[in-house]
Amino acid sequence: MNYRMLRYLLGCILLIEAILMLLPLAVSLILHENVMPFVYTIVILLVISTPCVILKPKNTQIYAREGFVCVSAAWILLAVFGALPFIFSGAITNPIDAFFETVSGFTTTGATILPAVEHLPKGILFWRSFTHWIGGMGVLVFMLAILPSAGGEAIHLMRAEVPGPTKGKLVPKMRQTALILYGIYIALTCIQIIALLLCKLPLYDAIVSAFATAGTGGFSILNESIAGYHNPAAEWVIGVFMLLFGINFNLFFFILVGKIKYVFKSEELRAYLGVVAVAVTVILINTYHTFESFGQGLRTVFFQVSSIITTTGFCTVEFNDWPVLSKTVIVMLMMIGACAGSTGGGLKISRIMILCKNIVREIKHMIRPRSVNVVRVDGDVVPDETLRSATGYLTVYILVTIITMLIISIDGISMETNLTAAVSCVNNIGPALGEFGAFGNFSPYSDFSTLVLSFSMLFGRLELVPMMVLFSPHAWKKR
Amino acid sequence: MNYRMLRYLLGCILLIEAILMLLPLAVSLILHENVMPFVYTIVILLVISTPCVILKPKNTQIYAREGFVCVSAAWILLAVFGALPFIFSGAITNPIDAFFETVSGFTTTGATILPAVEHLPKGILFWRSFTHWIGGMGVLVFMLAILPSAGGEAIHLMRAEVPGPTKGKLVPKMRQTALILYGIYIALTCIQIIALLLCKLPLYDAIVSAFATAGTGGFSILNESIAGYHNPAAEWVIGVFMLLFGINFNLFFFILVGKIKYVFKSEELRAYLGVVAVAVTVILINTYHTFESFGQGLRTVFFQVSSIITTTGFCTVEFNDWPVLSKTVIVMLMMIGACAGSTGGGLKISRIMILCKNIVREIKHMIRPRSVNVVRVDGDVVPDETLRSATGYLTVYILVTIITMLIISIDGISMETNLTAAVSCVNNIGPALGEFGAFGNFSPYSDFSTLVLSFSMLFGRLELVPMMVLFSPHAWKKR
Repeated sequence: MNYRMLRYLLGCILLIEAILMLLPLAVSLILHENVMPFVYTIVILLVISTPCVILKPKNTQIYAREGFVCVSAAWILLAVFGALPFIFSGAITNPIDAFFETVSGFTTTGATILPAVEHLPKGILFWRSFTHWIGGMGVLVFMLAILPSAGGEAIHLMRAEVPGPTKGKLVPKMRQTALILYGIYIALTCIQIIALLLCKLPLYDAIVSAFATAGTGGFSILNESIAGYHNPAAEWVIGVFMLLFGINFNLFFFILVGKIKYVFKSEELRAYLGVVAVAVTVILINTYHTFESFGQGLRTVFFQVSSIITTTGFCTVEFNDWPVLSKTVIVMLMMIGACAGSTGGGLKISRIMILCKNIVREIKHMIRPRSVNVVRVDGDVVPDETLRSATGYLTVYILVTIITMLIISIDGISMETNLTAAVSCVNNIGPALGEFGAFGNFSPYSDFSTLVLSFSMLFGRLELVPMMVLFSPHAWKKR
Repeated sequence: MNYRMLRYLLGCILLIEAILMLLPLAVSLILHENVMPFVYTIVILLVISTPCVILKPKNTQIYAREGFVCVSAAWILLAVFGALPFIFSGAITNPIDAFFETVSGFTTTGATILPAVEHLPKGILFWRSFTHWIGGMGVLVFMLAILPSAGGEAIHLMRAEVPGPTKGKLVPKMRQTALILYGIYIALTCIQIIALLLCKLPLYDAIVSAFATAGTGGFSILNESIAGYHNPAAEWVIGVFMLLFGINFNLFFFILVGKIKYVFKSEELRAYLGVVAVAVTVILINTYHTFESFGQGLRTVFFQVSSIITTTGFCTVEFNDWPVLSKTVIVMLMMIGACAGSTGGGLKISRIMILCKNIVREIKHMIRPRSVNVVRVDGDVVPDETLRSATGYLTVYILVTIITMLIISIDGISMETNLTAAVSCVNNIGPALGEFGAFGNFSPYSDFSTLVLSFSMLFGRLELVPMMVLFSPHAWKKR
């Protein structure tokens, strides 16, 4: 384990966090709010990170395990220090709750322990939403985009942070790939802000809503989430942009470079849109009687489906009151998740496609044991390694969900709530069903359960493996 | 597809069902009950099966796909004809309900649509419990034991019917393996009947309870299940025998031939007993305040854990009223299931062990991509084929459970009920949680849901693959 390089990289990450925190500080200044929570945090971050960054190690070579450990440790540290403004401002007094809220922000979950948010300072709420935006594309990808690559570390870091079974590099150089991804991300966010301004949302509201949409996070600055705006046009805009941010960013790159045929060829995109269409239809038929008009029904259901499948978690309706069929569809969408290489969470469409195609292959193999069968996606053969990692992923995914559910059941809250809370956190969605309801919060859980749920969110966002490596004794053994 | 051989084998199965039905017919005769329901059914079975059996095909060669199709078709036919006595006797008037009840019997699930059973004729209840015993070890294994093997079909049939990733043959000859398995099965059942008689249960009650225990089924002839006997000694006997029937039968064979060290070496057995011990401890601590004495608490909790992990489904307590932690442990035990090669259902301990060890291997591989890692059970390397089929199994298992849950949610019953009903049927357990409770029944579901749940039970009992092959277009394609 190259500890020096690890220390250096983690120092860089914290330095970047300090720099990013200048933005909410500026917002607080403009709005004449107390800037000290951010000032204190930035000073602490600088004191810790500067010595780490100045002492650049000679040996910059890292391997896969350092990559996993670095990414996991970085995310935990980001959340620990990112929680400080909440504590310093008094917005959240319990440190574990503040950690939960920040993890929920960075992992783009959007689950909150705050029963109400409208009374909080706008600078603090800006930081809360900004964590979604930072966590959505990944702060290590950001680091790769702005720092000159030191050596072979880039590929290991990126692989550990970017979600889903995806082909990875867009262009041969890692740094350029990271730059392109962030370029698309920033551009789409700006377009959404402009669209929301056109819907007559105030600038501040447009920016924080766009942050939460872009990261598929779900934190809102209104107690009633997006429903609080009573703005159908804004609901459509956010609904569509959530769907866009759930698409593999590689496809936007293909559009930019004129390779539109790749977009039409993408099986994952077709499956994604297909699932959305089927879910909207089923839920709309099932809940039609609860809406005033077809337009309102379509808008609300589309918004909710888009919000859940992309794991954003915005709400415009109390779907906890929907019929059981619709609720079950919602839970299924929670687990399916968005496309690989997007900012969304969940199992990911492409992984589910691979798993299903693998079943077909296994059955073919059972029927004719001597035939040779392969799994293809977009016409290409999926290597056995990817198949193995997808099936292994499913096992870990279920294990983490069930263990989370088991541990939080100690608090005695109902089974439906525990199940959906665990699913919601592991898949980085946000709202749970049951006692809490779509607009509910996680404050009824004990500190211990809150901490467990925080780590479930981290497990989910980093796609399980990096966190497992961090906690695995094998990773720390000397060769 | 060798249709003639398929017809011949299915004819044999139905002929065996006719012969087996002589036993409940005899019971009805002895108890001076109406024997006509059985007489009619036996006549129908003979009329259909005799021509199929007489015309023995010249080409008896079958392959894997014929094996899967034959086993699936046999189980569906057994349930269809096995349901007739219920209909003819008027015990169950709705044919779909009768089919559900019979499938639940043969698959050793024990879920019932009957709100009360004590008023039914004893001969009919005998047949209901006897289906558990027949289905537990598998009717095709029985056929292999009594028929001279015609050729290569034995291995394909046995592989499709005997559950779990197990080494399969005990002795080189398939027929002898089947004979040994049935010998152990019959011997253990007889010992249990004697033990229950010593606990002062009436002979009839002892026999039907032993049938339901041996098959890990769970049908009871009392409305209150085993709790209705108010007999602590019988509860202990049944509790221990459920646990025994959840053990891989190969281990009993090793004991018989004096290879005791294999029993102590078995990782699966140790894990199985370990899970039981942990579950009993956790639930006992969690529910201690609800019992009058430690003895009563231990007996009740042990009985319930043993009943659920072996997927039997007998109840002596309304565990639906337990705290959420205990209920969550029960749901987990439902999914874990018994040992491979036992009469129990569920995912099976050995499969979960393989899946967990596979995760460790994947993590080791992630940390050191160039290292070579293998999965070992009982010291032997698990072949890649077994690993692949275990992970594939998990995918299908989850898919079938979720699809079942989704379809039955159309009826509008609560999500907890639907989830546990789906888990209960796919894993062949019996009782569900939620609105129905431990002693509840499935009659609130619509006919359509009842049919879906029937097929979920068949999927679960045959370990998913044979049924998927039956419904797969690939199986019916000409080469």
